[in-house]
Amino acid sequence: MSEQIDLAEYLFTRLRQLGVESIHGVPGDYNLQALDYIEPAGINWAGNASELAAGYAADGYGRIKGISALVTAFGVGELSAINAVGGAYAEMSPVVHIVGTPPTALQDARMCLHHSLGDGNFRVFADMYAKLTVAQANLTDPNTAPSMIDRTLRESVLQSRPVYIELPTNMVKAKVSARSLQFPIDLSIPRNDEGFEDAEVELILARIYSSKQPFIIVDGFTSALGITKEADELVRVTGFPTSTTSFGKGIVNESYANFFGIYAGEAGKQVYRPWVESCDLILRIGSLYSDVNTYGFSTKTNPKHTIDFHRNSVEIGGTNSFNNAHVKPLLQKILSRLDKSKLPKYDPLPDLGNPRQLLEALPPTQPADTIDQATFWQRISTFLRSGDIILTETGTPSVGGRDFVLPPQTTLINSGIWLSIGYMLGAAQGAALAHRDIIRAITSSDHTKDAAGAHITDTPPSTRSSQHTFSGRTILFIGDGSLQMTAQSISDTIRNKLPLTIFIINNDGYTIERFIHGMKATYNDIQPWNYLLAPAYFGADLNDASYPIVTKRASNYGELWDVVGTKEVVEGKGLTLIEVMMEREDAPDALKKLVAGAARRNSGHAEQQQGDGEKSAVQENGDLAAVESGRRPSAEKMIKVAG
Amino acid sequence: MSEQIDLAEYLFTRLRQLGVESIHGVPGDYNLQALDYIEPAGINWAGNASELAAGYAADGYGRIKGISALVTAFGVGELSAINAVGGAYAEMSPVVHIVGTPPTALQDARMCLHHSLGDGNFRVFADMYAKLTVAQANLTDPNTAPSMIDRTLRESVLQSRPVYIELPTNMVKAKVSARSLQFPIDLSIPRNDEGFEDAEVELILARIYSSKQPFIIVDGFTSALGITKEADELVRVTGFPTSTTSFGKGIVNESYANFFGIYAGEAGKQVYRPWVESCDLILRIGSLYSDVNTYGFSTKTNPKHTIDFHRNSVEIGGTNSFNNAHVKPLLQKILSRLDKSKLPKYDPLPDLGNPRQLLEALPPTQPADTIDQATFWQRISTFLRSGDIILTETGTPSVGGRDFVLPPQTTLINSGIWLSIGYMLGAAQGAALAHRDIIRAITSSDHTKDAAGAHITDTPPSTRSSQHTFSGRTILFIGDGSLQMTAQSISDTIRNKLPLTIFIINNDGYTIERFIHGMKATYNDIQPWNYLLAPAYFGADLNDASYPIVTKRASNYGELWDVVGTKEVVEGKGLTLIEVMMEREDAPDALKKLVAGAARRNSGHAEQQQGDGEKSAVQENGDLAAVESGRRPSAEKMIKVAG
Repeated sequence: MSEQIDLAEYLFTRLRQLGVESIHGVPGDYNLQALDYIEPAGINWAGNASELAAGYAADGYGRIKGISALVTAFGVGELSAINAVGGAYAEMSPVVHIVGTPPTALQDARMCLHHSLGDGNFRVFADMYAKLTVAQANLTDPNTAPSMIDRTLRESVLQSRPVYIELPTNMVKAKVSARSLQFPIDLSIPRNDEGFEDAEVELILARIYSSKQPFIIVDGFTSALGITKEADELVRVTGFPTSTTSFGKGIVNESYANFFGIYAGEAGKQVYRPWVESCDLILRIGSLYSDVNTYGFSTKTNPKHTIDFHRNSVEIGGTNSFNNAHVKPLLQKILSRLDKSKLPKYDPLPDLGNPRQLLEALPPTQPADTIDQATFWQRISTFLRSGDIILTETGTPSVGGRDFVLPPQTTLINSGIWLSIGYMLGAAQGAALAHRDIIRAITSSDHTKDAAGAHITDTPPSTRSSQHTFSGRTILFIGDGSLQMTAQSISDTIRNKLPLTIFIINNDGYTIERFIHGMKATYNDIQPWNYLLAPAYFGADLNDASYPIVTKRASNYGELWDVVGTKEVVEGKGLTLIEVMMEREDAPDALKKLVAGAARRNSGHAEQQQGDGEKSAVQENGDLAAVESGRRPSAEKMIKVAG
Repeated sequence: MSEQIDLAEYLFTRLRQLGVESIHGVPGDYNLQALDYIEPAGINWAGNASELAAGYAADGYGRIKGISALVTAFGVGELSAINAVGGAYAEMSPVVHIVGTPPTALQDARMCLHHSLGDGNFRVFADMYAKLTVAQANLTDPNTAPSMIDRTLRESVLQSRPVYIELPTNMVKAKVSARSLQFPIDLSIPRNDEGFEDAEVELILARIYSSKQPFIIVDGFTSALGITKEADELVRVTGFPTSTTSFGKGIVNESYANFFGIYAGEAGKQVYRPWVESCDLILRIGSLYSDVNTYGFSTKTNPKHTIDFHRNSVEIGGTNSFNNAHVKPLLQKILSRLDKSKLPKYDPLPDLGNPRQLLEALPPTQPADTIDQATFWQRISTFLRSGDIILTETGTPSVGGRDFVLPPQTTLINSGIWLSIGYMLGAAQGAALAHRDIIRAITSSDHTKDAAGAHITDTPPSTRSSQHTFSGRTILFIGDGSLQMTAQSISDTIRNKLPLTIFIINNDGYTIERFIHGMKATYNDIQPWNYLLAPAYFGADLNDASYPIVTKRASNYGELWDVVGTKEVVEGKGLTLIEVMMEREDAPDALKKLVAGAARRNSGHAEQQQGDGEKSAVQENGDLAAVESGRRPSAEKMIKVAG
C-alpha cells in the first residue's frame, strides 16, 4: 500500500473505510471524472434526480450510518444542495460534501467559466459553505491532499456535522501516497484529564444521590454525540422518571416503566409542568434549545437544578464546570461508578401519564370514522415494530408523531430546528438506503474488510443506530405540501429499489401554516396532486415481484386498518404509498398550542420584554418564554431565570 | 396619499407600479403576514410547489417583464432558492427577492429559532445573498424603509440583477409614509457628459465609416442592458453582416438579409471564422465572454479591431474609452447621427451561409425517419411563429436551438453561463406567466393605472420584450434529465393554468454529460419517468375545455409532424407535452465540438499555458482559447491577443 494512487481513489477509499457504502449526488461537468472512482471503491452510486433531494438523503444516511457523502458539481449543483447541508449543520448530521470544481489553472487564471458568476471569483461558493460546515479542504496539492482529507473526514465524524471538500477536475488523477490507507483514520476521542474527570464524576454522583425528585430529559443531539447507549443505560439503571424532547424521541427505550413520553411544557399535560418545575435535579442530555423543541422555551428548567450534558462541556447549576472535555467517557465513568443503593427511590412513580396506557385506553374506532389528528398518531403506533426506522416530516406529522408509542429498538428521525419541509422525504430515501446497507453488511460474511483488506468501520462511534436491531422497514409520515417540495426522492427510491413506506397525510395544503396565519388564505393552498400516481409517473416497474408497489388511499379508519393489515404492507419490502385523508383544518392539539406561540413571537410581542441589551441570551429566552405562554413573568419565574 | 400605510403595502404597491403583476414564492413561517398584502396590491400569487422552481420562475418572469419578485421564508426557503438567484445574478435577470425574517427583537436577542442554525447569528444567509445581489435592504426601521425599498428596486431594474430585501415579521404592519408612492421610482439613466459623449460618438462613427469589412455580434446581455431596440436598429440601418451569440439569439430580427446566424468560432462553419478574423471592425454589443458562449473562447475577436459596448463603458481597441457612462443614450446618439451614405457597402454580402436557405435546402423527412439531433432543431423552426417566447434548456436543446430559424418578433431565452439544468423549466413557467400578464394588460383598458390611480410602468426600460408582439405561446425545449430537476414547475404551470408547450427531449439520460465524460457510465443514467403522466400526477383537470391538456409521444418524424400540426398544439392555449424520442448517444454537431473543448479544459491541459502570473485575464483567456482549439498559439495569434 505504499504505492502512489490517484487522489480520487484515496478519497473514496477513505470514505468506504469509514462506512460509506452508498453516495448520493448528481453528475455534472467538473465532477464526472471523480465519479469513475466510486464503484471501484466498493461504493454504490445512488444517482439522485436533484441535488436538494440528494443533500437531504445524505443527511438521512448520515443520521443512520454516522457518516455520509454527497457529490455535486461546482456552483449550480452545490447551491441547489445548500439548504440540505445547512440542515445537516443545524441538526448535526455528518455529511461529507464533495464538490467537483474547475481545474486549478483555470481558476487561477480567473476565467469566465460556466457554473461560475463570470467574475473570475471561484471562492464565492466555498465561502458560503464555510458558514455551514465544520471543516473545509481544497485539494490543490497532491502532497497535502491525503492528510487534508483525513483531517476533514475526522471532523465530520467526531463533530457529527457536514464538511466541504473541493476536488478540482485536474486533481482527480493526481498521484498521492497510499501509505496512510493502511491505518484507519483516528476517530478516537482524546482522553479527559483523569483527575479532573474523577472530580466531576464525584460531583455529579453526589448531586444525584442527594436529590429528592430527579428527572431526566433526553434530547436529540444525544445520538449525534454518540452517547445513545449511555443515555439509555442511565435511564434504565437509575429508574428516574424520564422524558424525551420531540427531537430526542426514540433514543430511549419507551417500554421502560419510568418513561413518561415527551415533556411538552406549556403544550403538554397540565400535571407534567408543575411536577418538573418542582424537581430538585434535572439531568439533560444532548439538548437543543430551539423554540419548537422547547415548546416556546417553556420546557427550559431552572439552571440551579439542572445538569446539562453537552458534547464537550457539562453545565451544572448554570455554569460550565467541565469545559473542553468529552462527555462520552464522562458518562461512561458515571455509569461504571454508580452505586444503585445510594439512588433516590420513587415508590410509586409519579402519575404523569403513561403513553402506553393512554393508547390502550382509547376507544376502538368504527370503520366509517374520519381519521383524526387527535388520535391517529397514537393509534398507528400499533403498526410500528422493533427495528423500524421512522421519520416524521415537519408539520402535523412531526407534532403528531410525538404521540407515537414506540416499540423498543426503533429509530425516529425528525427535524428539531431546521424544519425545512421536504427534508424528511429526501432523508427517508437516504435512511432507507443506509438501512439496507447495514442489513447487507450484517448478512454478508466479509463486511468488515474491503477489497484491499483494510479495516472498515461499519459502525462509527457516532452512529445513532449502535444499539438497534434492524427490520428493513423504513417508514415516513409526511404532509402533502411537504411531499411536493422533493417529490424527486420517490423517483430516487424507486431507482434504488429501496424498501420505503410513506404515509401521505393529505389535508389539502400547508395545514401547519394555516394554524400559524391565514387559515383560509389561498396562499396556504397547494395544487392537489394525485399522489398515488407517483410510482407510475416515476417509472416504477409495477410487475416486479422483487420490489412490490402498493398504493392505497385510506379515507376512514376502516380503510386504514385494512391497508396496514395486508401482508405486503406489514412486510414493507417494496414501495408502499398510503394516502391518509384528513380534514383541512384538523391538527394535533400540541401543534395548535405550538403555533400559537410562534404567531405571538412573529407579531413581535417579545419586544415588550426587550431589556437594556445587557441581559444574556438565556435570560432573554427565559423572559420571552413567559411571554410565549401568555403570562407576564412572575417574580418567582424571574428569579429562576436569573438564577 | 400622504397618510401612513403598512410597510408591506408600500413594498407591494411599489412592485406593482414597476410592473410586477404576479409574484412567485412559497409560503412559510416568517412570511405569511406579508403575503396578506399581495392580492390587495393587485398582484397575483403564483404559489409555487418549491422554492427553487419559484426562483427560476421569477428569473424567467424578470427576463420578459424587466422586473420580477420572489417571496420565501428565512433560512430554509431562501437557501432552496439561492441557486436560482445566483443564476439571475450571473445572467442579469432583475429578481426582487423578499425574505420574511424573524421579528427584530428575537433576532437582536440571538434566540434559538427554527429555520436558523441555532447559533444566534441571523446574518448568515443575508451575508451569502450579498454575494449574489446588487443591493440589499433589511427593513428594520419604518422611517428609512420606504427609501431603502425605492433604492433597492431601482438597482434591480437598472442593473437588471437580483436584489435582496429582508422583511421581519414584526415590520409587516409598521406604519410608513405613503407620500412617495405618488411619484414613480426614478428609473432614468443619468445623462452622460454631453461633450464627452459627442466626442465618443464621432470617434465610433469615424471607425465605422472608415471600415472596409465591418461585422456585428449581438450578445445576450443586450436585452438586460435595455438596448434590444437600438441593437436591432443598428443591424437594420447599417446592413452590416451580423451574427448573434447563442446567448444573444433572438434579439436581432433573423429575417434580415444581413443576418448570418450564430458565429460559433471553432465549432461553426469552416468559412465563418477566417472571414471574421479578417474583419477590420467588429461591433460587439452586450457581451458575455463565458467559455460556452464563446465556444471555448474561440469567438473572441482581435481587440484592436473591436468596439465592445458594455452597460457603462465602451472598449475601443482594447482599452476602455468611455467609463462610468451609459451605453443606451450613446447608442441612440450614434443611430441619430449615422449618415448612411458614409457607410461601407457590401455588394454582395459575404457567403457565410444563410440559416433560412439552409433550412429550405434540407431534404424532406420520411414518416418513419428517426428524429435526429442534426436536423430536428432546424426543422422544428417551422412550428415557431412571431410572438412566441421560446426557451431552450441547457443540454442538447440549448445547443441544438442555436440552429432555430426564428421568425421576427420572437423571444428566445437560454442560459449563457449558469447552465443549471432545471433552470429553464422554472423559467418557462415564469415566462408564460409574464406573457399572460402582458397580454392581459394589453387587452385591459385600465392597465396603466392601479387602483389608487398611480402610474404603473408595465414595460420598464430594461424589458427584453419592448419591441415584440405577443402570441400567447410559450414553448420550452428540455431534456429528460433536466426536467426531473424541477418537475414541480409543471405543477405550478397547471395551478396557474398557464399556456405552455413543452418538447421533452427523451434521450435516456444526461446526454450532454455523456459527451463530456462517461458515454456509457451508469452515473449518466436517470430513472426513466413516464413523462406524459405529468398532468395526471400533478392534478390537472383533464376535462377543462378552457385549459386543454395535450400529451403525445413522437417516436419518428411522421408522429412529430402529426402532433405539431394539430389545431390545439398550434394554438398552444393549454398545457402541451410532446415527448420527442431521440437516440441516447446523438447530439448536435456543435455540442460534440463544444464539450470536447470542455473536456480538454477539465483535464487541466490549460496548465501548459500558465504564464508567470503577470498576464491579464484577457491574455490568459486568449492563450487558453488557442489551447481549447487544439492548436498551439501562433505568433500572429499571440500578437493579436496582446494587442
